[in-house]
Amino acid sequence: MGRWEPDARERLVLAALDLFSEQGYENTAVAQIAERAGLTKSTFFRHFRDKREVLFGGQEVLAEMLKAGIAGAPESAGAVEAVEAALVAVSAGLTEERRAHGPRRREVIAGNVELREREALKMVGFAATMADSLRQRGVPELEAGVAAELGLLAFWRGYDRWLETGGDFAEVARRTFAEVRAATTAVLEGGE
Amino acid sequence: MGRWEPDARERLVLAALDLFSEQGYENTAVAQIAERAGLTKSTFFRHFRDKREVLFGGQEVLAEMLKAGIAGAPESAGAVEAVEAALVAVSAGLTEERRAHGPRRREVIAGNVELREREALKMVGFAATMADSLRQRGVPELEAGVAAELGLLAFWRGYDRWLETGGDFAEVARRTFAEVRAATTAVLEGGE
Repeated sequence: MGRWEPDARERLVLAALDLFSEQGYENTAVAQIAERAGLTKSTFFRHFRDKREVLFGGQEVLAEMLKAGIAGAPESAGAVEAVEAALVAVSAGLTEERRAHGPRRREVIAGNVELREREALKMVGFAATMADSLRQRGVPELEAGVAAELGLLAFWRGYDRWLETGGDFAEVARRTFAEVRAATTAVLEGGE
Repeated sequence: MGRWEPDARERLVLAALDLFSEQGYENTAVAQIAERAGLTKSTFFRHFRDKREVLFGGQEVLAEMLKAGIAGAPESAGAVEAVEAALVAVSAGLTEERRAHGPRRREVIAGNVELREREALKMVGFAATMADSLRQRGVPELEAGVAAELGLLAFWRGYDRWLETGGDFAEVARRTFAEVRAATTAVLEGGE
């Protein structure tokens, strides 16, 4: 399939983002999204459970990548190295296409409190996934929680940066995670 | 007002938690809550905007306390000390009454995805409030973000612990925050 012939899922995402931007998320019906994409409602529902899924679909995949990244880190890796492996692993899911939608997707979410709530819970879920995976590697309970939160901060800030700059997410995330660790050291030293 | 004559707001909270536990959050109407509390619907709406507010009302007050705690820390205080001041300040809002409702409130929230989403966004808001207050003290941007996340982790874990043990939240939170910082040091050292 060539560049100018995106598949149904992609057409639905683009149509939905267009409509959400034009007339608001609340005012957009699934039927309109399908129509704009030149597809049927039943095609929509083969790809997405509901309207919200257009914005949040694919996040289970990212969570699975984070998990696999941690599980696949070398046996000798500590919590930091394992979290870094998760950030590198997730880059496979952060495609150029995803980046192209990123800013508009974020704008739609920012404009609706229920979507912001959903996004927040998803982030909590990412941290919990990483913490659980670290515990399964034998990282002590609280250390796993801390490492996951620092990793999430790096993920989140790295994602924002990547939306702006593009390029390889793994590289951006690695650099951001190094900055987060340096800032953490500064915070702890300032508190002694 | 004596112990056995709680005020209207408290009666409404208790009635709501009873009903949510008995028949589910979704199946409970405001009218039922008012009736169970022996009050009118209009009294309910003088205290709460909607049904969800019964569970989340009072959180703006906690956020204000966190903010005031950071703003009121000594000028010489670093980020860690300022976050600790926030955790101590918030203890004024964590009353014995609040503790008594805590486990049931948590159970209701755990059973409903929309409530979990709301709770997650509230937590994100707490971290953002602390980070902003730290930045206003001149703490560098990323360090403020990190310190706020570590503080939130301590708040959250300290809260769980306090629900179980009771006592002064300030003392529990201080101890938990010290543990979080020790775990953070261990994570960073393991990653060198």
